[in-house]
Amino acid sequence: MSELNTPQPDTTSVTTNTRPALLALDWGTSSLRAFLLDATGQVLDTRASAHGIQNLPQPGEAGFRQAFADIASGWLDAHPGLPAVAGGMVGSAQGWREAPYVSCPADLQTLAAHAAQVDTGRPGTTLLIAPGLIHRPVGAAPDVLRGEEIQIAGALAHHPEWSAHACMVLPGTHSKWVEVRGGSVQRFVTHMTGELFAALARHTILGRLFPEAPASAAEARQGFELGVAAARKAGPGDLGHQLFAVRTLGLTKQLPPGALPEYLSGLLIGHELVSGIGRLGGTGTATPLLLIGDPKLCQRYVQALTLLNRPPAAVLDNTAPAGLLDFARAAGLLRATPEESPT
Amino acid sequence: MSELNTPQPDTTSVTTNTRPALLALDWGTSSLRAFLLDATGQVLDTRASAHGIQNLPQPGEAGFRQAFADIASGWLDAHPGLPAVAGGMVGSAQGWREAPYVSCPADLQTLAAHAAQVDTGRPGTTLLIAPGLIHRPVGAAPDVLRGEEIQIAGALAHHPEWSAHACMVLPGTHSKWVEVRGGSVQRFVTHMTGELFAALARHTILGRLFPEAPASAAEARQGFELGVAAARKAGPGDLGHQLFAVRTLGLTKQLPPGALPEYLSGLLIGHELVSGIGRLGGTGTATPLLLIGDPKLCQRYVQALTLLNRPPAAVLDNTAPAGLLDFARAAGLLRATPEESPT
Repeated sequence: MSELNTPQPDTTSVTTNTRPALLALDWGTSSLRAFLLDATGQVLDTRASAHGIQNLPQPGEAGFRQAFADIASGWLDAHPGLPAVAGGMVGSAQGWREAPYVSCPADLQTLAAHAAQVDTGRPGTTLLIAPGLIHRPVGAAPDVLRGEEIQIAGALAHHPEWSAHACMVLPGTHSKWVEVRGGSVQRFVTHMTGELFAALARHTILGRLFPEAPASAAEARQGFELGVAAARKAGPGDLGHQLFAVRTLGLTKQLPPGALPEYLSGLLIGHELVSGIGRLGGTGTATPLLLIGDPKLCQRYVQALTLLNRPPAAVLDNTAPAGLLDFARAAGLLRATPEESPT
Repeated sequence: MSELNTPQPDTTSVTTNTRPALLALDWGTSSLRAFLLDATGQVLDTRASAHGIQNLPQPGEAGFRQAFADIASGWLDAHPGLPAVAGGMVGSAQGWREAPYVSCPADLQTLAAHAAQVDTGRPGTTLLIAPGLIHRPVGAAPDVLRGEEIQIAGALAHHPEWSAHACMVLPGTHSKWVEVRGGSVQRFVTHMTGELFAALARHTILGRLFPEAPASAAEARQGFELGVAAARKAGPGDLGHQLFAVRTLGLTKQLPPGALPEYLSGLLIGHELVSGIGRLGGTGTATPLLLIGDPKLCQRYVQALTLLNRPPAAVLDNTAPAGLLDFARAAGLLRATPEESPT
């Protein structure tokens, strides 16, 4: 998002007649996004800044306070007493106030009960920060997420029918596969797919044959589909071998250079899907598979899932505003039921 | 190897009474090693320089000629007419003279028949360069190796009993798993284990918790063994998920920082072994598994293979001199049978 390159807030106003009810922050490592919401979850106004927790205007507590003031003061001046909530890395050990990981299973009530509160420096305004989640499977390493719990709550707010049972996939640097059952996150699995792609493309021999210019659509499709097809045939431990094909298919000119990064992408996403479906996807189509995240990245996952005969039930863009609203509701900061539903 | 840091040849002389019969070069990307051999394969003298093909004293043909002269002139002056052979990246498209990949199955006769010859610039001395191998499995990407074909020939020279059937494992940046049957390389598989470790440790979040100081022996063992154990339980596509444990085991303090790089090493080597044994290792212990390479790295593989109940039949250090001798023999540069065997 280009507006994140500058620390100056970028304001987009939406004309509305409804009354602001919540100031909601999606505060990550490299960016800060703010939403002014009414009691039904309608976004009245949004702002974005580059003041992620690793890019504050000054170090420490003062940096957090200033970043908060920069993005929120205008709204708070106009609407005194507005409650404020946040999710994301702002609640990590490197954040403003740590909201330690809460064990699964966890629902919105669990998140609200373990939220951390921080004095924003503005009299009368405290910020309630959602905790992340930890899953401790028997006989395996623990897994953690932070920020995605809000996206999941938002997806369930938009689609309550998925509360009973769904598998939510949030693609990214660290993709998350999340099993929801009975309205709670039961368990989840991280795949380092995005970070693997970046490290392999930039810092191994595999990127050497990658072209400067992007591939044609046909080349990109060919490479991606072949990568997914290879992943589908993978046995345990095969990734370290299959990766080498990115080089040999280029060396032997079986794939044009433009198709090679796409092959790598298809191979890595394919591996994630094969593993994720095996672990959390359930059998057949009984478990709805939902994608949440950046539309362009989600499109790759739709393409790969379709090749694996497991097309997703839905693709959702950013669900953080709805999730933050329900988190605030669960914490008692808003009335449980809105007076009117304008949508 | 510290002597490779300087382009000056480092000479070690071995007193011997036997007559030099071959000048043999192991000429890789970053280093050049030379061996003066008698007709039985005994190493009479060795030299090493940093003049790998990507580090020549001057660009192009002249650089190769100079590097060759620097390392070989002394021996050639003393023993005019000595035949000269080489293996490794010197025969690649970026090398002195390309010796294109030869298809499997391939034995020493195949290598000799497809060798490339280059004028060394020294009157009367040509250099015969061994080709690499290509394996084209049905329905999968091709695989290539270059340099390892000589190591394999050397292993078979030391242990002819493995010619009938063996699985040779050459750990490294790009590990090679090679099936030998009837004296020929039948097929092989590359695993990018070493390069994956380096890229993940240096260029992803996984290295962030790694300590400056090396781990204690106990911590290293604990981390490595847990990593291998995790790999043993891996299903298809699981690596991108299991890698994240390097972070979560550190975050949750279930492993001390010193154990984390060892866990990553055990996980990656374990994945290679699970895949490699599944593909080429045969069932049970009927197929002897042989390790060839750097003793310290091989020791990690021995440890992991033992945990997987598949200890290797033998571990061999550098077998290039013996392999180059047999390559020269196959090419008719030496008499087929030595007159005497001093060992």
